[in-house]
Order: sequence, then C-alpha cells, then structure tokens
Amino acid sequence: MRDHFEARDWDGAGRVGRLDVPRAGVTVETPALLPVVNPNIQTLEPRRMETEFGAQILITNSYIIKTSDGLREDALDQGLHDLLDFHGAIMTDSGSFQLAEYGDIDVTTEEILQFQYDIGSDVGTPVDIPTPPDASREQAAEELRTTQERLGIAEGVDVGDMLVNAPVQGSTHADLREEAGRHAASTDLDVFPVGAVVPLMNDYRYGDMVDVVAAAKRGLDQDCPVHLFGAGHPMMFALAAAMGCDLFDSAAYALYARDDRYLTVRGTKHLDDLEHLPCPCPVCSEHTPAELRALGERERGDELAAHNLHVSFAEMRRVRQAIRTGSLMELVEARARAHPAMLDGYRAALDHAEQLERTDSASKDTFFYLSGESARRPEVVRHHERLDRLAPEGDVLLTEGDNDDDFDESWTVEPPFGPFPRALRNTYPLTAEVPERLDGAAFDAAADGVAALCAGSDAAFTLAHRDWPERALARVPEDVSLVNLHGREH
Amino acid sequence: MRDHFEARDWDGAGRVGRLDVPRAGVTVETPALLPVVNPNIQTLEPRRMETEFGAQILITNSYIIKTSDGLREDALDQGLHDLLDFHGAIMTDSGSFQLAEYGDIDVTTEEILQFQYDIGSDVGTPVDIPTPPDASREQAAEELRTTQERLGIAEGVDVGDMLVNAPVQGSTHADLREEAGRHAASTDLDVFPVGAVVPLMNDYRYGDMVDVVAAAKRGLDQDCPVHLFGAGHPMMFALAAAMGCDLFDSAAYALYARDDRYLTVRGTKHLDDLEHLPCPCPVCSEHTPAELRALGERERGDELAAHNLHVSFAEMRRVRQAIRTGSLMELVEARARAHPAMLDGYRAALDHAEQLERTDSASKDTFFYLSGESARRPEVVRHHERLDRLAPEGDVLLTEGDNDDDFDESWTVEPPFGPFPRALRNTYPLTAEVPERLDGAAFDAAADGVAALCAGSDAAFTLAHRDWPERALARVPEDVSLVNLHGREH
Repeated sequence: MRDHFEARDWDGAGRVGRLDVPRAGVTVETPALLPVVNPNIQTLEPRRMETEFGAQILITNSYIIKTSDGLREDALDQGLHDLLDFHGAIMTDSGSFQLAEYGDIDVTTEEILQFQYDIGSDVGTPVDIPTPPDASREQAAEELRTTQERLGIAEGVDVGDMLVNAPVQGSTHADLREEAGRHAASTDLDVFPVGAVVPLMNDYRYGDMVDVVAAAKRGLDQDCPVHLFGAGHPMMFALAAAMGCDLFDSAAYALYARDDRYLTVRGTKHLDDLEHLPCPCPVCSEHTPAELRALGERERGDELAAHNLHVSFAEMRRVRQAIRTGSLMELVEARARAHPAMLDGYRAALDHAEQLERTDSASKDTFFYLSGESARRPEVVRHHERLDRLAPEGDVLLTEGDNDDDFDESWTVEPPFGPFPRALRNTYPLTAEVPERLDGAAFDAAADGVAALCAGSDAAFTLAHRDWPERALARVPEDVSLVNLHGREH
Repeated sequence: MRDHFEARDWDGAGRVGRLDVPRAGVTVETPALLPVVNPNIQTLEPRRMETEFGAQILITNSYIIKTSDGLREDALDQGLHDLLDFHGAIMTDSGSFQLAEYGDIDVTTEEILQFQYDIGSDVGTPVDIPTPPDASREQAAEELRTTQERLGIAEGVDVGDMLVNAPVQGSTHADLREEAGRHAASTDLDVFPVGAVVPLMNDYRYGDMVDVVAAAKRGLDQDCPVHLFGAGHPMMFALAAAMGCDLFDSAAYALYARDDRYLTVRGTKHLDDLEHLPCPCPVCSEHTPAELRALGERERGDELAAHNLHVSFAEMRRVRQAIRTGSLMELVEARARAHPAMLDGYRAALDHAEQLERTDSASKDTFFYLSGESARRPEVVRHHERLDRLAPEGDVLLTEGDNDDDFDESWTVEPPFGPFPRALRNTYPLTAEVPERLDGAAFDAAADGVAALCAGSDAAFTLAHRDWPERALARVPEDVSLVNLHGREH
C-alpha cells in the first residue's frame, strides 16, 4: 500500500487525489501540471509559477544540471529549491530523454539518483530506456528488461525520503506495457511515469496513446500515481485524466511560445493567424494580437508563455472540478471535438469502457447524452451488465409510454440505457438528460439493453417504443413482441 | 441596400461584419456583445467595460430612464453618453420587455423614439409586441400586425442619424417569423432583433430557438444586421452566430453574478459548487472559490460579473476568429457538447444545412470530422449537390484504393463526402481530416454521395470500399457493383 498517494474522488478511471511529497513538505493536488523548467533558460521564473499560477510542483532536468559546470556546483551548494527559487515540490528527470534523443548519456542510475538526492530533488528518476512507438516486440522487450533492472538498482539506492519514479515502458505493445506496469507496481518505488508517448502525441496518434495508457493502467495498482510523461498540451488533459493519469508536465508552454504558438484547449494557433485572442486570460484580456506581434522577441515569448501556462493551469483546474462533480466524461466529450485525432482518442477510450467502469463513481452529476459516443460510456455499459443479472418474471412490458395493467410488470425503457424498473427512474444515471433529436447510437444501445435483459430472464417481453428506427429494432431479440406507440398516443 | 452594415467574411450563415453607428461615430465589429447596463444599478461601470473588456457598444433601457424622475432629467440634460460615461455606441430598448413582463406600458412608439433621440441614443427601438413562444397562430399573427404597424410609425419619426431597430416577432410559427423578417427588411429601418426568444432559452429549447432564427433569416436580407435579443449566455454564441446572428446582449453577466452564478462556455455553475475556478480570466487566476465566497456580497457580485463578462467577451472573440478562418462549425461542434439541449440546437441547425450552405465560403480552414453530426454539415450537403450535376461516362471506378486501368475513369471515394475526381483531392473541403475510427454516419454520407453521383449519370459504377458497414452499403444504388478491398490489400 502506497500511503503517499490517495485518490479521493473517482470519475471513470480519473481521480482527484493527493500526492504527499515528504521531502518538500508539500501535498500536491492531482491531477496536477508540472511546468518544465529548463535550468539554463527560464522563460517564466519559478517563483511566478508558484505565486501567479499556483504551481505546487515543477520538473527540471538533473542531467543538464549535472553536466553544466556552473549549474552543478550551484545546485550542490545552494540546493535546487534556492537555485530555482521555488518552494513547492521539485521533480527531476534523469537524462533518459537525452538518451532517447542523442543515443547515449554518460551517467548510471546510481550516480544520477545520488546526484538528484544531493541537490535536494523531491522526486528523482532512474535512467530508464524510452523505447519509441512501433519498435519491434523484441527491441521493446529487451529494452524493458534493462529498464526493469534499473528500477531494481534504484530500489537499492539510499535516497532518504526522496520519492523515486518507476517509468513504465513497452513501446506500443499493450501486453508489454501491462507487464511493465505490474512490475513497476511491485517495486517499492513511488511515482509511475508512462514513458515514450511524446512521439505518439506529436503524430496526433491519440487513439494509440489511449491504448498505451490503458495497458499500463491495467498493470498498475489504484494507489499508483501515474504521470503521463511529456504530455503538456491542454487539449488532452481531460482525456488523459479520464484514463487515470494524475501528473502532466508541460515544456510546451515555453517551447511553443518561442515559436509564436498559442495554446488553446481546442488546439494550437499561430500568433500570425490570430485576428482576435480567443481567451479570457490576463494576457489576452490586456492585449490584441497586433500588440503582441509588435513586442520584442523576448517579451513576446514571455507573454505567450504566460498565456500558454494560464490556459494549461485553468484546464487542469477544470479537470479537477469535473472529477469532483462527476462530469469528466462531459468535459472529454467537448475536448474530443478539438481535432479528429482527439475524437479518435475518445473513441479509443470508449473501447476501454469496462476498464473505466471498474472505478467509476456510482452517483455523479446528471448524465448528459452529448453525442453518439455517449451511448458507449461506462455508465451505459454498467447498466447493461446489471440488466443481465436482473430476472423479471411473467409478462413484462418495457415501455416508453404508460403502465399497462394487463402485464405482470411494467418497466420504463429509455435510450440510451434501455429498460429499467420504474422505481429506479430517479437514480443515477437514469436521470440522464438526452436531446430531443436522438441519434441511431442511442436507440441501438437501448435495444442492446433490451437484449441484455432478455439474456438473463425467462419472462415474456413486450417492447412498446415510440417509432424506433428499424436498425435498432433489428437488435432486439426475436421473441420480444414489438408495439409502436407512435400514432397511438395523443 | 443597407450601407451601414457590411458582412466581410462568411462561414455558414455566420459572418464577421462591421456595423457603422453614425450617431456614435463608431464602427462595431460583429458578432458583437452588448452588455446590458441597468441605468439604476451599475454592476460594472460602462467605462470599465470599454477600457478593460473592449466593449464597443452597450444597451440600456430608455423606458426605465424615461419613467425615473431623476434619471430622465439627467439623461436629457447631459445626454446618455455622459450619464453612463461610455464613449462607444449605445443602443436603447423601448420598454417592450416591460410590456411583455407586466402587460402594459405607458408610452407610444413616437414618444419613445423621440425620447431616445433626445437623450442621445445611437440605436433606438419602437414598442413592438414580443409574442411568447407557443402562442396560438391567431394571437401571433394579430400581434405581429401591431408590431408591423409600429415599424411603419417608426419609419415616420424623424430621428436624424440614430439607427432604429425593426424587431422580428411571430412566436414559434416559422411562416410568421419568415414573413416578419421579409416585412422588416422591406422597411427603411436598420437593425433586426429576433424578439421574444428568451423564454425558449430559459427552457433550454435551443432546437426551437434555431428554428425561429432560421425562419427569420429566410425573410431578412443578407445586409440586415441581426440581433438575437436577450441571448447572453456564452455557451450559445457560436451556434447562434452560425445561424447568422450578429449582435448579442448580456444582462446575464450581472444578473447571474448577483445569484453567485458563474458562466462558462459549457454551462452555468454555482459558486458554492466550485472547488476550483475552471477559467484563466484575471478574476479566476487571482482568486480561489473560497476567497470569492469570503467576499462581501457587493464585492463578490462585482468579481463574478467581471468573470462572467471576461468569458463572454472571450467567447465572442473566439467566434469572430473562427469565422475569419472558417472553423466556426468546429467551434459549434465543441459547444454542442455543453448540454444535451445544445446538441439538440446543433442538430436543428444541421436540419437547415442547405440554408447555411448558401452563404458558406468556398474555401476555409481544413474540414475536421468531429462527430456523427459532421456528416450533415453544409460542406457535405454542397458536395452531394455538386455530384448530382457531374456526369462521368463509361466504366467508372469509385475507390478507396488505387486507380485501375481497366476502367475509363477512377475516382477517389472517402467518407463522409463520397466520390470525387482525383484532381480535386487537394481542394476544400476534400482535404478533410477524419478520425481513424469512423462512425456509421460518415459511411452513410459517403454512400449517399455515391447515390447522388449515380442519379445524374449513365455510367457503370463500381465501388471499391474498405469494409464499409452493411447499413451504408444498403444505401448504395443497386446497379453499382461492389468490391470490398479489405483483405485484398496488403
């Protein structure tokens, strides 16, 4: 049992939690965003991130510090918190990224963990091997073995109360990611980065990213705080949080700013393409695009970085708020319309609806039916699983209309859930709000609900529907009698 | 020809335009938001709206001013701009709202227009009759006749260069709204409020609202600036703009603030329910919910009003930016996921796809396929209309795969558009981005495209598809030969 992380509220696989970082004396509210601070180039001062943006934790790179003569001595002398002038928690990376980029680094896990400890890091990282997507199974398995050896070495290094990352690798091989998650959870390490997903995100392969996270999560335990390493675009925070990611880091806020790129929850814009600033943040409330373009490069970069960080932190607050009230899937629905690849990611997430359902809250804010995708949400899956276990008897009417005393029982039937006993109509999620104009997926799901009920029952069912489409009716088992209420009612 | 309004960029029926308000010497960029200023209670000072929020125009109520002894004299002495301390354009309402609320007001159209002129209003309003939704046809037609008489009277009042509103009524009767639009456009009045839609919005009847706007727009001309009267929730700006509304007014920012209600583009929250402030605006960047709750009533109301106005103005900038680049429908896709009723509104808008198509730009930002609804967008409708007019000859292959020299012609076929000549593949909207995981609606639309092409051609068609669902294939005309490429390719 990892007692430094506690998940307090659940929504799907998403959770609001608290990560205790003992060495910093700080408790981080998750999901949390860690701004990446380049120890050489500080776009925004860490102190400003703390006071103005509310950052509780940031991440910097211990390998860069260790290999930069001036920085190394300063960090060892003053400690990282004074060096960066930041009083929250500080996580340090190990150089694995440099390893992936340049093929070679000159440090071992023992050395870098010891160095991270010596400079006062609060969360250290061993030197894992970030196997890229689409690597052969052989390469991925081989490199995973090395990563796992390093985790074993890391367990043996005395780092006091510094937390230590246990990266989960395995490329795009779901079974390897799951096994890597299971192994990492079995160590006594503390935080679990899902690694080497940046190439997937750069290529807009959000569906593959979701599959990788889902696989890692199957291997990890519920008390493992999970870091989606390198995920800094606010567009995808909600989706990744819904898959169970707790920590995100953003270098994007600064890197994008340097290229005049402007982050939004609906994608990235280039400053040159903006005639209006589509954001209420302090930067965008106080400037026009023309004013920003007229600034010097450094000042413009700072303003854009501040904007990028404002929208990123706001989205993270939005995600936490949504989990608290149980409306995270509704937020994901909106974010899925940022880009076709985000829709792909959401649809991939729904392929894992049963996995998400296992930790979903039993009662949340009103279920909103917001698209054909809503018909595949975990709540609908759960309802159908329950129907399979209910076994009404005799002549049973499933109806969108009124009760009928000629039947032994009358149940309500409503898209997308399908049938349910009338007594449950005021319970979550059956209080759902649905649009007047329903799509085929809602009727299909309701028909599947009828089929799930029939599968577990010997009763004689009659379905009284209001003009369901043929396609949905074709999914209703043949021995169910059909009555179309449309035209009979007034 | 109304030369005080110019639509410069189009996206569907949405447009970015300029409304010249000659009496104020101001040109308002549309779509624009008019904050409602209560002349008795100023939640935020109009000067602050101008300098801090960029308001170019606001609206206040001349009837309240006329019937308040102190205000009346001050307004007549100083003029409205000095009274309110606002240098942009000022629109004044006439008391029609009070008429609708209290059943009786003590002023005529001549009197109120003269008074509006005398106090220096830039856009005045006659006393129309706001017939509520669901009124009988008889009542709606009768009251519309009265409104139209009042417009006639208004035409006769000498108001110099003050613009005058010509409200479009007709309740929920589409034919009356259309006729009212046609009549209003035939007057020499200037701005066209679609009236009495507030009850629809209060009841979340966004589908009905869309139908009412669509009907009014069919009657109005393209050079008529249209005001969606009483529409102040930022959640619906994008949808209403896509239907062709240019002006919006918000009393909501202040009224909601007084009840501790917090506006977002995804709906309204109550401050008591917020553990995090899901917004990057200056108010939300600088406060926690607990801090806001701890403020005194007046100060809390001011902060919430400022937040509400920040998100509203930011959304209006976002709408203008989206129209400029031709991505308004993508924004509407996201906003449709705010609430099932918003989805209903979007689906209703797509019922009017042919109407939206008439003014749509021929080339825009990349078409994003973002939901089953995307298959019904105006761009898809237009492509199918074009297919109906193309007439390839001989043996024609429509294929998701490679060309085949055995055919006289090879066309590409892609969901949701269906077939198109290969030469058009780099033209809008055929450069669309679609998710890997497609929905039934995309295949159905592609099949409908095949059918549209067949309808206008005598060629012998072969459709080579990659595993389209049965349901879509059933929509392909019977004389089209089908080949499933799935499994044949490698």
